[in-house]
Amino acid sequence: MTQTDEAAFRLWRTQGVTAPLGFRAAGIAAGIKANGNLDLALVFNEGPDYSAAGVFTTNKVKAAPVLWSQQVLQSRRLRTVILNSGGANACTGPDGFADTHRTAEAVAQALSNWGTETGAIEVAVCSTGLIGDRLPMDKLLPGVTEIVHEMAGGLSGGTDAAYAIMTTDTVPKQAAVHHRDGWNVGGMAKGAGMLAPALATMLVVLTTDALVDADQLDLALRRATAKTFDRLDVDGATSTNDTVLLLSSGASQIRVEQDDLDAAVLAACDDLAAQLMADAEGVTKRVVVEVTGAVDDDQALVGARTIARDSLVKTALFGSDPNWGRIMAAIGIAPIDLDPDRIAVSFNGAQVCRNGVGVPGAREVDLSGTDIHLVVDLGLGVGTAAIRTTDLSHAYVEENSAYSS
Amino acid sequence: MTQTDEAAFRLWRTQGVTAPLGFRAAGIAAGIKANGNLDLALVFNEGPDYSAAGVFTTNKVKAAPVLWSQQVLQSRRLRTVILNSGGANACTGPDGFADTHRTAEAVAQALSNWGTETGAIEVAVCSTGLIGDRLPMDKLLPGVTEIVHEMAGGLSGGTDAAYAIMTTDTVPKQAAVHHRDGWNVGGMAKGAGMLAPALATMLVVLTTDALVDADQLDLALRRATAKTFDRLDVDGATSTNDTVLLLSSGASQIRVEQDDLDAAVLAACDDLAAQLMADAEGVTKRVVVEVTGAVDDDQALVGARTIARDSLVKTALFGSDPNWGRIMAAIGIAPIDLDPDRIAVSFNGAQVCRNGVGVPGAREVDLSGTDIHLVVDLGLGVGTAAIRTTDLSHAYVEENSAYSS
Repeated sequence: MTQTDEAAFRLWRTQGVTAPLGFRAAGIAAGIKANGNLDLALVFNEGPDYSAAGVFTTNKVKAAPVLWSQQVLQSRRLRTVILNSGGANACTGPDGFADTHRTAEAVAQALSNWGTETGAIEVAVCSTGLIGDRLPMDKLLPGVTEIVHEMAGGLSGGTDAAYAIMTTDTVPKQAAVHHRDGWNVGGMAKGAGMLAPALATMLVVLTTDALVDADQLDLALRRATAKTFDRLDVDGATSTNDTVLLLSSGASQIRVEQDDLDAAVLAACDDLAAQLMADAEGVTKRVVVEVTGAVDDDQALVGARTIARDSLVKTALFGSDPNWGRIMAAIGIAPIDLDPDRIAVSFNGAQVCRNGVGVPGAREVDLSGTDIHLVVDLGLGVGTAAIRTTDLSHAYVEENSAYSS
Repeated sequence: MTQTDEAAFRLWRTQGVTAPLGFRAAGIAAGIKANGNLDLALVFNEGPDYSAAGVFTTNKVKAAPVLWSQQVLQSRRLRTVILNSGGANACTGPDGFADTHRTAEAVAQALSNWGTETGAIEVAVCSTGLIGDRLPMDKLLPGVTEIVHEMAGGLSGGTDAAYAIMTTDTVPKQAAVHHRDGWNVGGMAKGAGMLAPALATMLVVLTTDALVDADQLDLALRRATAKTFDRLDVDGATSTNDTVLLLSSGASQIRVEQDDLDAAVLAACDDLAAQLMADAEGVTKRVVVEVTGAVDDDQALVGARTIARDSLVKTALFGSDPNWGRIMAAIGIAPIDLDPDRIAVSFNGAQVCRNGVGVPGAREVDLSGTDIHLVVDLGLGVGTAAIRTTDLSHAYVEENSAYSS
């Protein structure tokens, strides 16, 4: 969905947060998950810089770790991020917030014992899992001591961390962008994204060894998330725990301009977003909904999101049914400017509707493949935007009707 | 969901649009549906009054019959309504509009030949079915001639009409309210309502023999739909064809005050809305989502609608899972005032969350029954509103993934 300067970047999916210089990571099984899978991850910045930026859920119901991490990020500086799966620590009240605080204190203490003087205010916390239950602190706190000792540089630590944050994910998601000038951006992500955010929150940690300041990080992160994670919309819901963090170590000693940083962070986020879509719960179709010809980009985005959230469109796509009438009905309720008689619709390049009316053969378009690119041209202006989404399948209903019980 | 003066009214579901004096109706198989089922309905007002009011879809993509009926209703007067299932005549362009016009002309001509001088401008047209295909006018026009000859008074004509407008409905929906003073309101409805509106549009025709003017009708209809059909929300979509009409014959010769008319029309609409919810496609749970304690009723309505449209809430309810964390996550994205720490949630009277935190035993609440009443108390004010909805089931996905093909 984005264009990168292929000559300047190389992107790898086998590397993640430890691809940039100056970062260590680990993932362990602390016993938070009953099934014994990895459930605790740590990303540690060795410096020399500790600038950081974050983007958080817009949900008014925010989990304790989100409230904590928003607070500590006011310093625009982070030494480390501790992440757990197996519990969201959301809707847990003051006691849940105290648990998050104790976790950060424990990480700071363990790092200080290990030889790196650290305060709790330098520790971000992320949690993911079922909403409403307290975390098993008797498992989590010993896990914190253990994971600090496990921290490793190199690629294996980053991969272990990517595994440890998985919930209903079937594969870990990592991406690393190497710039030819010698600096890097790495990242890991978990979650079915907006797919099932009330249980499977999107958590993303990005790292870079570029020499940049906190303002640059913040700009790059906001620009990238607006074009990538914010445009991944599987069921219209927004988690209580969504968190995207970007940490810089400056360890490459290479000063990087905003444009180059933007491009590298965008490339990493875009690839992670594509991986999230591909592994979304119950997905049988990977769908890009693109609206063109809107009066401006903002209206195009609203239109694309409205279509991407329409249950009738999504069930039709699950059935490989080129039911363009449902696309027309969906765009018609978007709060944007449109003239029904100017709308054109195409599936994978085959036009099925022109000037608001079906074209011959529209119902015969073959949508049996996995990838569907839907374009709705409003014919009004030059505004354009795209949303990544999925179909609405039996598997989605199955997974989400039997989660907490 | 509404209170009626039991002493003043009696409500029957075995009677419909011909329950009031002065109305005839019919339903026939004109061959529009390939399976030979009834597919053409007529409701005819014998007078002496012909006042009428209508409420139409807010979708910007409007079907030809909606554009036509909006136009003819500017006179606030209708002699008759012709309705077809088997095709929505939406997204069919100027040719489709010409088909609707020809249909109205044919009805006017047939009625004039039958002895009642009628103009096309006195004929409303409603269509429902698949979006995007032209109607088979070679079947529809001969059907118009036939149905005028079939028109019958009494209850059977109304019931035939109720059958003829069904698409994926499994039962016809009728309601009649008899006032002890001797006047009546009758109605029929079809469609899975907001459930599957792009294919199964909500059409409602209401009749009354009360002596009232067009202003009274319009007020009563708008007030009733705002509290009933507008609060039935199964998948958040809005059809291209939704139409609700109210015709008065004045045949009872009983002049009726606005309050009494409002109450009777509301009672009929409320009952029809309940029938639509109960017969919604793929429904396994009948759900009322009520928000209380909002700063005002409007915000309560936005909150209830946001929860009712949340796929994660709806799949949890399908699984009889009292997953209150998803309710909290859903209300948190509603664009309304709220304080997470004040929210209380209950299922069927059992409180599961208080002050934003789960209560002991919350996950053991039994939701295995068909009816679920969910109450979210925001604890801020006295605003309250309720939305009728359903769960999101395998059957919903099944029906809607295999419709047009």
